[in-house]
Amino acid sequence: MSEESILTNEETAGIYDVIVIGGGPAGLSAAMYTSRSGLRTIVIDKNPSAGALGSAHKIENYPGMASPLSGGDLLAVFREQAESFGAEIIKDQVMGVDFESDPKEVFTNSGSFHAKTVIIATGSMGRKPSLEGEERLRGRGVSYCATCDAPFYKNREVAVAGELAQIVEEIDHISKFAKRVHIITPSRSATSEEDEILGRHPNIELRLGCNMKEIRGSEKVESILISCAHGAEEEIPIEGIFIYLRGNQPVVDYLYGAVEMADGCIISNSRDMSTSVKGVYAVGDVTCKKIRQVVVSASEGCIAALSAEQYIYQRDRVRTQWSTTGKT
Amino acid sequence: MSEESILTNEETAGIYDVIVIGGGPAGLSAAMYTSRSGLRTIVIDKNPSAGALGSAHKIENYPGMASPLSGGDLLAVFREQAESFGAEIIKDQVMGVDFESDPKEVFTNSGSFHAKTVIIATGSMGRKPSLEGEERLRGRGVSYCATCDAPFYKNREVAVAGELAQIVEEIDHISKFAKRVHIITPSRSATSEEDEILGRHPNIELRLGCNMKEIRGSEKVESILISCAHGAEEEIPIEGIFIYLRGNQPVVDYLYGAVEMADGCIISNSRDMSTSVKGVYAVGDVTCKKIRQVVVSASEGCIAALSAEQYIYQRDRVRTQWSTTGKT
Repeated sequence: MSEESILTNEETAGIYDVIVIGGGPAGLSAAMYTSRSGLRTIVIDKNPSAGALGSAHKIENYPGMASPLSGGDLLAVFREQAESFGAEIIKDQVMGVDFESDPKEVFTNSGSFHAKTVIIATGSMGRKPSLEGEERLRGRGVSYCATCDAPFYKNREVAVAGELAQIVEEIDHISKFAKRVHIITPSRSATSEEDEILGRHPNIELRLGCNMKEIRGSEKVESILISCAHGAEEEIPIEGIFIYLRGNQPVVDYLYGAVEMADGCIISNSRDMSTSVKGVYAVGDVTCKKIRQVVVSASEGCIAALSAEQYIYQRDRVRTQWSTTGKT
Repeated sequence: MSEESILTNEETAGIYDVIVIGGGPAGLSAAMYTSRSGLRTIVIDKNPSAGALGSAHKIENYPGMASPLSGGDLLAVFREQAESFGAEIIKDQVMGVDFESDPKEVFTNSGSFHAKTVIIATGSMGRKPSLEGEERLRGRGVSYCATCDAPFYKNREVAVAGELAQIVEEIDHISKFAKRVHIITPSRSATSEEDEILGRHPNIELRLGCNMKEIRGSEKVESILISCAHGAEEEIPIEGIFIYLRGNQPVVDYLYGAVEMADGCIISNSRDMSTSVKGVYAVGDVTCKKIRQVVVSASEGCIAALSAEQYIYQRDRVRTQWSTTGKT
C-alpha cells in the first residue's frame, strides 16, 4: 500500500540521497556538506579541468586562501575535501534527466543514477576561443573577468574588446588599475551616458568601429592586431586583453527544460536555491545571477545542501506516515 | 554650488570609500573585495578573538580548506588576506552611527570615521556561558551548532539541551551520527509531530521536564548533571553537549534603529545585501537569515562589496554631473 513498496530492497540500495551534476566549486561545496551530513552523495563531473574555476590561471580573492593558487589547484582542494567526507566523484557526462519519476533519474553516457534530490551545478560555458592566439594565451594575458583579474594589471597597458554597452562598467573598473586602456569596440558611437563614464578616465583610448583580429605574444600577451572601419590594420602593444565578445552561456542543454528557466539560465530561489521542481536545486553560474565569484558559488552549494537535507527528512517523514496509515 | 564644495580637501582626504563594522568572515571578505578593487577601506573590529568563528574550536567544512583549522586560525587568514590588498583593520568599538549625513559617519571609542558606504557585519552574540563548566569546556565537548559539530561525534554519546520545539531538527541531525542522544528539555510534553520525528531514532533518550545543572570534565566533557521535575539530580556520562538554551542575538545595539530591522535582526536584500538606507549594507549573522555558515557569510561580504563599489561609482557620477551643471 505504501509508496515504499514500489521499490525492491535491491533498487533502494542503489538510490542516492543526492546527485550533484557538475564538479565546480558550487557542486563540490554542496557535495561536501551533504556527504558530511551523512547523505549518500555522488558528483557527476564531465571534465575536472574544464569550467570557469578549473581553467583560471590564478585566484587570489577567494576568502580564506593563505596564498594565491591556480584555479585547478583550488578546485583540487574542494574535490579532496568532498571526497574526505565520503562523496563519490565520477567522470561522466549527463545526457538527460527525469525529475518527474520517483526517485529522480539522471542519465549519463555510462548508465542511469537515481536519487531523492538533485543539485544542478553545471556552470556556464566560457567563451570558445576563436581569435588567433586567444586559446594559447588564456590566463597569460587573456582574461574574461574584470573583477577577477583587473588588479593584476596595475600600471600596465591593457585592452578591452566588446560592444560598448556591455563593457562600460568593466572599463570603469579596469581603468582604476591600468596605466592605459585601449577600448576596441565594433560600436560606431557612444551614448551620452557612456561618454560621461569614459570621460572620467583620462587613461582611456577609445577606438570605435574596430574589430579584434589577433592576439600576439610568445609566452604571454604582447600585442593585439585590430582592424577598423576607417583604416588599415593596426598593432597595439599591450600586456592584457579583456574579451567580452560573446557572453557566457549556462550549460543546461541536457535538462531539456526539466526546470523553469529564463533567457537560458535556471531560475532558483536565492534563499534555498530551489528550482521549479521540488527536491531539485540549482547553484552557481548555471543560475540567473550577475555575480560570478567562487565564494558565491560555494555558498550557494552550502545552502542547497542544507535545503536538500531538510527536503529528504520531510520526504521520508511523509513516507513513514503514509506507510503507517496504509497498515492501519 | 556643488555638493562637493561642502567639504574641504582636508576633510575629503579623511573620507573612506568603505567602513566595515565587524571583523568576522563576512566583514573581512567584504574588505578584501573592496580594497582589492582599489576602494579605501577600514575595518573596525571590537575584538578579533570574539565572535562565532573566532571562538570556534575546529572548522573542517569551510569549502577550500586543505585541512581542518581552528576558527581563530581561519579568521587570521581572512584578516591577512584583506590587509594584503590594503584594508586597514583597527581594534575599536563602534558606539553610534549617522547614516543620514553625507558622508556617513561612524562614532567609536576613539573618534569618528567618515565614508561613502558602510557595511555592517557585527555578527551575533553567542550565548553567554552560564552553566558551571560551560565556559571552560567550550569547544571541548560543548557545542552550539549541530550542522557544524555533529559529525565530530560519530558513534559517541551526546546530549542536547533546550526547548523541544527549538531543538527537534537539530536532534534529527545529531541522531544520525551519535550512538546515543540524551535530550534534556524543560518541555513537559512533545507534540505529535515532535513525537513522530523522535520516534524515528531508536538511539534517543527523551527526558522531559529536566534542566541542566552542570557540565563536568577535566580536559573535555565527561558528563552532565541534570535535575528533573519528577526526581533527584542525575549524572549522565556523555562526550558532547549541544546547548540551545538561549538563542544567538544579532549585535545591533550601536545602530539605534538606523536601518530597518525585524525581531532584532537587520533586513537585507539577499541579491545585493542592501539595507533600508542607500549605501549601507548588512552581511553575515547580523542579518535575518537561518543559515549560519562561514562560507555564506563570506559570500555575502563579497556581494556587498561589489554593490558598494557600484554605488560609489554611481554616486560619484551623479556628483560630477551636478558639479558640471552648477558651473554652466
